Amino acid sequence: MRIHLVNPNTTRSMTETIAAAARVVAAPGTQIMAATSAMGPASIEGHYDDALALPGLLAAIAEAEAAGVDAHIIACFDDTGLEAARTLARAPVVGIGEAGFHMASLLAHRFAVVTTLSRSIPVIEGNLLRYGLDRRCAAVRASEVAVLELEDPASGARARISEEIGRALREDRAEAIVLGCAGMADLARALGEEHGVPVIDGVASAVALAEGLVRAGLTTSKTGAYAPPRPKPYAGRLADFAPKG
Amino acid sequence: MRIHLVNPNTTRSMTETIAAAARVVAAPGTQIMAATSAMGPASIEGHYDDALALPGLLAAIAEAEAAGVDAHIIACFDDTGLEAARTLARAPVVGIGEAGFHMASLLAHRFAVVTTLSRSIPVIEGNLLRYGLDRRCAAVRASEVAVLELEDPASGARARISEEIGRALREDRAEAIVLGCAGMADLARALGEEHGVPVIDGVASAVALAEGLVRAGLTTSKTGAYAPPRPKPYAGRLADFAPKG
Amino acid sequence: MRIHLVNPNTTRSMTETIAAAARVVAAPGTQIMAATSAMGPASIEGHYDDALALPGLLAAIAEAEAAGVDAHIIACFDDTGLEAARTLARAPVVGIGEAGFHMASLLAHRFAVVTTLSRSIPVIEGNLLRYGLDRRCAAVRASEVAVLELEDPASGARARISEEIGRALREDRAEAIVLGCAGMADLARALGEEHGVPVIDGVASAVALAEGLVRAGLTTSKTGAYAPPRPKPYAGRLADFAPKG
Amino acid sequence: MRIHLVNPNTTRSMTETIAAAARVVAAPGTQIMAATSAMGPASIEGHYDDALALPGLLAAIAEAEAAGVDAHIIACFDDTGLEAARTLARAPVVGIGEAGFHMASLLAHRFAVVTTLSRSIPVIEGNLLRYGLDRRCAAVRASEVAVLELEDPASGARARISEEIGRALREDRAEAIVLGCAGMADLARALGEEHGVPVIDGVASAVALAEGLVRAGLTTSKTGAYAPPRPKPYAGRLADFAPKG
Amino acid sequence: MRIHLVNPNTTRSMTETIAAAARVVAAPGTQIMAATSAMGPASIEGHYDDALALPGLLAAIAEAEAAGVDAHIIACFDDTGLEAARTLARAPVVGIGEAGFHMASLLAHRFAVVTTLSRSIPVIEGNLLRYGLDRRCAAVRASEVAVLELEDPASGARARISEEIGRALREDRAEAIVLGCAGMADLARALGEEHGVPVIDGVASAVALAEGLVRAGLTTSKTGAYAPPRPKPYAGRLADFAPKG
Amino acid sequence: MRIHLVNPNTTRSMTETIAAAARVVAAPGTQIMAATSAMGPASIEGHYDDALALPGLLAAIAEAEAAGVDAHIIACFDDTGLEAARTLARAPVVGIGEAGFHMASLLAHRFAVVTTLSRSIPVIEGNLLRYGLDRRCAAVRASEVAVLELEDPASGARARISEEIGRALREDRAEAIVLGCAGMADLARALGEEHGVPVIDGVASAVALAEGLVRAGLTTSKTGAYAPPRPKPYAGRLADFAPKG
Repeated sequence: MRIHLVNPNTTRSMTETIAAAARVVAAPGTQIMAATSAMGPASIEGHYDDALALPGLLAAIAEAEAAGVDAHIIACFDDTGLEAARTLARAPVVGIGEAGFHMASLLAHRFAVVTTLSRSIPVIEGNLLRYGLDRRCAAVRASEVAVLELEDPASGARARISEEIGRALREDRAEAIVLGCAGMADLARALGEEHGVPVIDGVASAVALAEGLVRAGLTTSKTGAYAPPRPKPYAGRLADFAPKG
Repeated sequence: MRIHLVNPNTTRSMTETIAAAARVVAAPGTQIMAATSAMGPASIEGHYDDALALPGLLAAIAEAEAAGVDAHIIACFDDTGLEAARTLARAPVVGIGEAGFHMASLLAHRFAVVTTLSRSIPVIEGNLLRYGLDRRCAAVRASEVAVLELEDPASGARARISEEIGRALREDRAEAIVLGCAGMADLARALGEEHGVPVIDGVASAVALAEGLVRAGLTTSKTGAYAPPRPKPYAGRLADFAPKG
Repeated sequence: MRIHLVNPNTTRSMTETIAAAARVVAAPGTQIMAATSAMGPASIEGHYDDALALPGLLAAIAEAEAAGVDAHIIACFDDTGLEAARTLARAPVVGIGEAGFHMASLLAHRFAVVTTLSRSIPVIEGNLLRYGLDRRCAAVRASEVAVLELEDPASGARARISEEIGRALREDRAEAIVLGCAGMADLARALGEEHGVPVIDGVASAVALAEGLVRAGLTTSKTGAYAPPRPKPYAGRLADFAPKG
Repeated sequence: MRIHLVNPNTTRSMTETIAAAARVVAAPGTQIMAATSAMGPASIEGHYDDALALPGLLAAIAEAEAAGVDAHIIACFDDTGLEAARTLARAPVVGIGEAGFHMASLLAHRFAVVTTLSRSIPVIEGNLLRYGLDRRCAAVRASEVAVLELEDPASGARARISEEIGRALREDRAEAIVLGCAGMADLARALGEEHGVPVIDGVASAVALAEGLVRAGLTTSKTGAYAPPRPKPYAGRLADFAPKG
Repeated sequence: MRIHLVNPNTTRSMTETIAAAARVVAAPGTQIMAATSAMGPASIEGHYDDALALPGLLAAIAEAEAAGVDAHIIACFDDTGLEAARTLARAPVVGIGEAGFHMASLLAHRFAVVTTLSRSIPVIEGNLLRYGLDRRCAAVRASEVAVLELEDPASGARARISEEIGRALREDRAEAIVLGCAGMADLARALGEEHGVPVIDGVASAVALAEGLVRAGLTTSKTGAYAPPRPKPYAGRLADFAPKG
Repeated sequence: MRIHLVNPNTTRSMTETIAAAARVVAAPGTQIMAATSAMGPASIEGHYDDALALPGLLAAIAEAEAAGVDAHIIACFDDTGLEAARTLARAPVVGIGEAGFHMASLLAHRFAVVTTLSRSIPVIEGNLLRYGLDRRCAAVRASEVAVLELEDPASGARARISEEIGRALREDRAEAIVLGCAGMADLARALGEEHGVPVIDGVASAVALAEGLVRAGLTTSKTGAYAPPRPKPYAGRLADFAPKG
């Protein structure tokens, strides 16, 4: 099975971390094909970065579709471009944010999300509402660790994330934690042991869900919300994105 | 990986159908250990059957835990005893109802459920509300096929289910269908091809999710809702169910 | 009027406390027929106890129906088996949890629940959601008093409950309190006087609602969710629970 | 026990019908003291009538408080002035709309309301939302019978209401019906027998709830939403309504 | 354009403050015709005052309609009588509460309301729920400043309101503030500068919305909730309010 | 006052229609500066077009900010890029979808949306949910008129839209209609007269709201969701979109 994992930001070193986390949990026989977006922001922190990450993400999805893959994973916790990617791909598409939320719902009555910066909270809350899982989420909390600090061992990022997890358990009555950034994938196991509750990484969750969909022979519905794009002209710098029909 | 799949009704032939459906989608190396409840109703149709299926289900969970398994699947679409089982088991527990809903959420903006009898609709609607996925479900529809008719080729069950799927697509703007009974597991693929939309079987979905949880090293949170039962005396015919602590 | 009040745990002394509280508020001419479950847990604290209390509860309901009663009250704040009991009984069935919530809704814009152990919070929150009254409930709080401690004057239970009521009034803007355990029935009046707000006991509330339903000639709808159980074989230790039709 | 039942419209003959319905279900020893508003609309159909019925209603509440009563019932299905009355009265106050909804919630998973004119639907839907019981209500339907037609045997009112009940059972999957007008109180029993489901009259429901509150020694919380009106001058034609403090 | 701004309390000096705030933001050519209710409470603080303010408000609306105006503004943050006024008026009607909420929704993901006394919180929360904007509101907070204190410079009102704004920003993660009383209209700009976030006055918001509706040629729908009152007799002191049809 | 109205699709003729509709309702002294996106889809129909319209939209917003404007209007009913634009702009930003919903909420208890193609329904439903106004919307209906057909008089577009409006009034109990596409702006008045209910055009609504925000001196909160983009490198074809800080 070939799973295309796309990092929608343009920081290659982060793609490596994420791909490694994915490969740890992948079933024997699953091949993780990691890709980095070729255009857009170096990290996705808030609505503006989200918007500008979309063309690069969709180009990567289209390229992988052409090459032939069994499933796609969008490796940004905001689930950047998830719905647009579903209209484009024949193979199923899983976002790591939704994957983490769904997995947490199987393990705990109430979970909390611990993410990077405050400005990401409304994006994540909006996704939870859209997916219907807002009622299961006790709180979305920010550790105020910037995405790129996660790659810097001197930043104290891990300690600050762990403190915020402690607060979620004590103050929000959370029973499990979802880590709210792809770049935190390698911290999940250790933080889970430290706190004695499930600490869920969206990347591992997405690999599991993508494998499951493929094995069950399921893919995105093409009636309604995810119908293929209608052929039409596109102008200017993005003209080559025009759907061919 | 050993997955314990328990049919909480006491009809062995149905366990065979379900186990076969599970084995079709299981990953290489996954062993499906199917069990049938030893006490309670022959089929689960409504709140009374649900209540009396619980001791048999929980006995089966306890037995499998003692034998050592990696995950449990509760193979009744009502997710009978899901929460009680989670307090009892060390390994993660997945219900086929919740599994179907979560998988459908990854494939469609709106799904519908097609189940057996009308009396099951309130149970399923209650579960959707509890899980938070009611907003994603366009309708829960009954085909008025009784559970045990599903095993009788002369009952016309398949045709009646297919008609109800057609209505859900036309009248509810559903983009995918979740089959609302474990006994329908073997119909999913053919109905999906007939209607051109994802038709999702909860059994296959639960296998995928259970495998994923195990591979990601995740299990039920033991703080809060699913804390282990407190040791205390139990009386009468159920005295042997008393938690040992 | 004959009201069957069933304690779904197997602790007879608690049945006495509850029945006494019921008799204090019953109208002249109402006879409270108290029963204790003959099988299952000594107290109900969380999902596992809830599940194993069901057969004993349903046996008691069936016995009282055969004897002829006008209404049933289920005297556990979790409303254990409420829906299954409604499918079984010809007479109306009231749970003390729902009774307390409905009465509180008539007296205050926002109420809070003060219950025993934290593990009961998710059960109660789930019920509030199912009944639709979650929006009226400011918080469900645990006093961390175990159910059986309520019977021990040396446990300091009353003081701990009173403290938690104080917190609910100050921190949650609650205007009334619902006591979240049948075993607290005898504390309501004194706590209400102490705090100057309505402190509502589910047992008294359920007696009032049951009497009202009987006097108004109303009983459970038998179409839909509470349709009588379908006749079918039951196996093993619970074979005698099989519905006769 | 003395229960003050106030008809907030100014049609005395309707008060008689309502009081008679109340007396049928009242417990022995309960005295129903019926009053008709002395100012405002002859019937309450929509927001404008609702607004102008308030002074007359509140004057009647104040008068009964002065005379000494144990509880008040507001006998308009819109629950006209319910919250204002609660700030004014020492005794508990029950609206017949809320009473019908709460009683229906004890008898059915889903109920429907059948009221008079379409223009009352938004008022009733707004109340259901406010009380939190919107999720329990399958539909609010209008029979297009005007309130005062209910008193005219030649109007065919009963037949039109019965037809609408039939539609609610077939099309909305309702399991019980709440009659949405005080003037329908005398039809409930016959319509219930005709349709084989509980048909609930708000007047009888309110008597039961009021009796229950009194017997349980409970009254409105005076902290928060229903705190007594602050003393202050009132001007003009309504100057005599100024709270005295 | 002529906009009728009605203060539904009977304190003329407050009408002046409000009218001045309205004139500051009105477009060139907009005439603000301010009126004070001729009967009812001197200030509106809770449900009882709200109820008794309705006749005076509706009389003022009717008078202005007769004189000919393009829109009405109800200048009480509780939106007293908004729905009844809409049934009566040909011109559109805007409440300052709803206006503030809608404007805040255009400027911030989450806003908080800072109002006068605690007893107004439930009224405002009820309105937010009814309008559907409860999900956008992080909290409704009381400064415990009485309405008439707002007119007294020695009361320290401004400082107490500012403190409460600070708490809403820090503790509720609010991104904008809606001032919850017409009498606070003149404080908005200074408090906005002090706190560096939008501080929204409902009066200015309502003027903007009313002007916009008029310019777009839009007025209240007369089908459904806001259909004109049905002609019928009214009795007693309010007989002259009877709709003529 | 200078209002920047940006059409986020690249069809100039549609910009002309929209700008004309905006100018009809603009106050004297308001200058509508219309712009067409320079890159991306010729029309926006579903999630893929939405995603690829974002860079062109944001470039237009940035350009207008540099030139100096008082407010921005995004003239696509999907409110494409609304949140990203708010992080970028100093001036307030209004989407025509949200504008239509807010205006409809001031005129009717329940409104319906009539849009172009079915595939837009989930986008619009998602926005209503996010804004909190889903509870006010009776239905989102598709006329199955493609966006570019709106410019072709021979397409029968107007008749098909009118038929769908009729269905919304009859079947959904809608009291007002919001037209769900910028390209329908010139049809609103005639359809309103034909059906006798408010038919609301988002473009006119957005002009009114933008003018109102400017006149009230209000702009987007810069704390939280709409904080300015953090400076960081952007790669590839979109490198020039990198925030400068």
